[in-house]
Amino acid sequence: MSKVPVSPPSGFRDFLPEEASARAKLIDSISRIYQSHGFQPIGMSMLENLSTLQGKGGGSDNEKLIFKVLKRGEELVRAVEKGEGELADLGLRFDLTLPLARYYSRFREQLPKPFKVFQIGPVWRADRPQKGRFREFFQCDVDIIGAKEIGAEADCISAILEVFSAAGLPGAEVHLNDRRLLSALGAKLGASAAAWAKCLVSLDKLDKLPAEKVREEMLQILAADGQSSADLGPFLDSGEMSDEWKVLDEQSYGDLQALSALLKQLHPGVAVKVNPTLVRGQDYYTGTIFEIRHPDLSGSLGGGGRYNRLLEIFGGAETPAFGGSIGFERLCLLLQEGGHGVGSAERPEVFLPLFDVSLRGPVLSLAAALRAEGIRADVYPDAAKLKNQFKYADDRGIPFTAVLGTDEWQSRSIKVKSMADRTEETVSLENFVKRMKELCKR
Amino acid sequence: MSKVPVSPPSGFRDFLPEEASARAKLIDSISRIYQSHGFQPIGMSMLENLSTLQGKGGGSDNEKLIFKVLKRGEELVRAVEKGEGELADLGLRFDLTLPLARYYSRFREQLPKPFKVFQIGPVWRADRPQKGRFREFFQCDVDIIGAKEIGAEADCISAILEVFSAAGLPGAEVHLNDRRLLSALGAKLGASAAAWAKCLVSLDKLDKLPAEKVREEMLQILAADGQSSADLGPFLDSGEMSDEWKVLDEQSYGDLQALSALLKQLHPGVAVKVNPTLVRGQDYYTGTIFEIRHPDLSGSLGGGGRYNRLLEIFGGAETPAFGGSIGFERLCLLLQEGGHGVGSAERPEVFLPLFDVSLRGPVLSLAAALRAEGIRADVYPDAAKLKNQFKYADDRGIPFTAVLGTDEWQSRSIKVKSMADRTEETVSLENFVKRMKELCKR
Repeated sequence: MSKVPVSPPSGFRDFLPEEASARAKLIDSISRIYQSHGFQPIGMSMLENLSTLQGKGGGSDNEKLIFKVLKRGEELVRAVEKGEGELADLGLRFDLTLPLARYYSRFREQLPKPFKVFQIGPVWRADRPQKGRFREFFQCDVDIIGAKEIGAEADCISAILEVFSAAGLPGAEVHLNDRRLLSALGAKLGASAAAWAKCLVSLDKLDKLPAEKVREEMLQILAADGQSSADLGPFLDSGEMSDEWKVLDEQSYGDLQALSALLKQLHPGVAVKVNPTLVRGQDYYTGTIFEIRHPDLSGSLGGGGRYNRLLEIFGGAETPAFGGSIGFERLCLLLQEGGHGVGSAERPEVFLPLFDVSLRGPVLSLAAALRAEGIRADVYPDAAKLKNQFKYADDRGIPFTAVLGTDEWQSRSIKVKSMADRTEETVSLENFVKRMKELCKR
Repeated sequence: MSKVPVSPPSGFRDFLPEEASARAKLIDSISRIYQSHGFQPIGMSMLENLSTLQGKGGGSDNEKLIFKVLKRGEELVRAVEKGEGELADLGLRFDLTLPLARYYSRFREQLPKPFKVFQIGPVWRADRPQKGRFREFFQCDVDIIGAKEIGAEADCISAILEVFSAAGLPGAEVHLNDRRLLSALGAKLGASAAAWAKCLVSLDKLDKLPAEKVREEMLQILAADGQSSADLGPFLDSGEMSDEWKVLDEQSYGDLQALSALLKQLHPGVAVKVNPTLVRGQDYYTGTIFEIRHPDLSGSLGGGGRYNRLLEIFGGAETPAFGGSIGFERLCLLLQEGGHGVGSAERPEVFLPLFDVSLRGPVLSLAAALRAEGIRADVYPDAAKLKNQFKYADDRGIPFTAVLGTDEWQSRSIKVKSMADRTEETVSLENFVKRMKELCKR
């Protein structure tokens, strides 16, 4: 047999037990926090019809990154040999928002109004693999569909901020803006929709390029659009939302100030900033947008926005909706670098070596008795050399080892060793479970 | 904009909140039971290189069902226009065992010996969609790699049986067999490897076809293979393992009896049967095989076996390994039909309607104070009609509603209503959290 490669595909990852355990714990913690706010879990298909993923007419950045699934059987033959139709019919979801819009449109009548929902799961993007960027990664979304006021914004952003504080990561910053203000600026400058979209792409680079370079790029785009005398005045200042913005759209300006005040009140330790140059990539945002940043990390730790028109592509009426997402992979990275996160809570508490095959039955029964009391008990499957068995327990850091040798079995007793202080005691089999409950603090 | 379909692809599913919540709880329970045995979680890529998935040379049933992922960019152009290479390079995993073998081969040196591992996650098969059969479904695997004795079998099967008893599903049956016994029978009958493989496919239909029909099919295959006088004698009797089997392979026979005795001792309520006609589909099994059945369900609820040679395809030495899997979707179905499983533990406990926008700040702060004490508190995002807000709380079955109206806010108090007994009390804001902790039993 020829040797098969042992690595996953480029851009995909495996996780060793410690890391997998830390990830699972973080997911559990996020899920509990989201549920403490009343958000409900749902389940969605991880593959979608390509027509769903490309529903907005094609062309958005994420649509270009879809992993497409080859047709099967007769349909594939027709596509390949006769050139009838596309080669692919399905695709892996690239985010959780578009599938949620499909889901909500499907079940609208059966769901509570408003619908407060959360999802934690993998998404896939055929991005060029690079440091910290993966082709399969997790997103943790909260959304409220069917609510139009800033209460939805406050609830979702609050839940996300709680995740960061529960993870022991102070110093998070919230940047807030509103797409309606950006549109109003475009209108004031007389820009066409297409030119203004290009301008926003430039503006979005403000955290990577010097402000002067961005200003220059925008002015060039506007000039090519026929607005050679456009004046960007104070609008590129990311520090503060000046009164010039207020004049552009009083309603949005007022909403932003109110939301900012609410979040400051609810999260006194978090820096909440109205940042008029925040753009965010998704083209379906229609109102409030936000981003979570952290001084220890470039780029964002999460973000989201209002998408009041996304559901229309599934034939529904305009439905107000707001949602946000935690950048799970970046959060894991930050926790790892800070030495947080990798706990030992799920490690076995007691190890029972197998001294002799004849004792397999009694050893398995003792382990079962411990588990019935909620104690995690690990048993060695083979009657291997005891040295190897003890090494296994040591390597896994199991705090207690209970040795049932043939002598102990004869005298109905068992030897309990503590790894922490290297003490040893002999306990009668009758009292074994009781004693282990004391030692394991049950 | 044209309307996009709201259904997932054929054979794929969405889950409403109640069902999604029940599934999440079941996964959590399985994960805790597996960990109580000392199994460790890992994380694996969900997509694999096609060469990995097809590593065994192609042709197994599951390999035919791979969802293949289209190449991208230049490589796709070359494959389509110049016919250079295949159209697809990646595939969605069809089980968790083959990727685990890859994973273990990659990290062998860093992992404990033996390696006790569990995985819960989705797999995909391009099967024809039919009732109870899905193209995306969850598997819950436990495996021990690097142990050769039946202790591995006893540990894995025990953990799986605990899942069924914890789910409140008595009546599970374990069927045990050993592939070495089946091979010994083929050798005794003088069958070629190819003919015997066909015979096993026939034998595997014993639960669907009458025994006489199966016997006839097998005799025909053997006759075509040149063994026209083959005698299947007592070997098709699924009821009991007769002494004729013992003569075929004493070692395997002895192992089976010992494993059966261990499982009976550990799980007195479970029917453990040595079933010499059990075959199981996977072609990588080399020794013990098992299947969990339930009288309320045709087919199996789970199963697995020993695969001592699978790791060789990744270039490693022969490595003993045993593993089993729970049929998660069938278990969910059984729990649903029995009315088990759908709990309300994660439902919000307190609902706070929004009487007036001016009260948004205080209401959000009160909800945050409840959550800080571990109480799940849901807030309505809009200042909508109170009737609609109360309907939302009713529909979601939230047991307490705490109304902060403008009068209450003036008098620093709040009205707490119990949905169960329709009582109402007014509590000072100062005592609110304390009172809710009493009511919610904290």
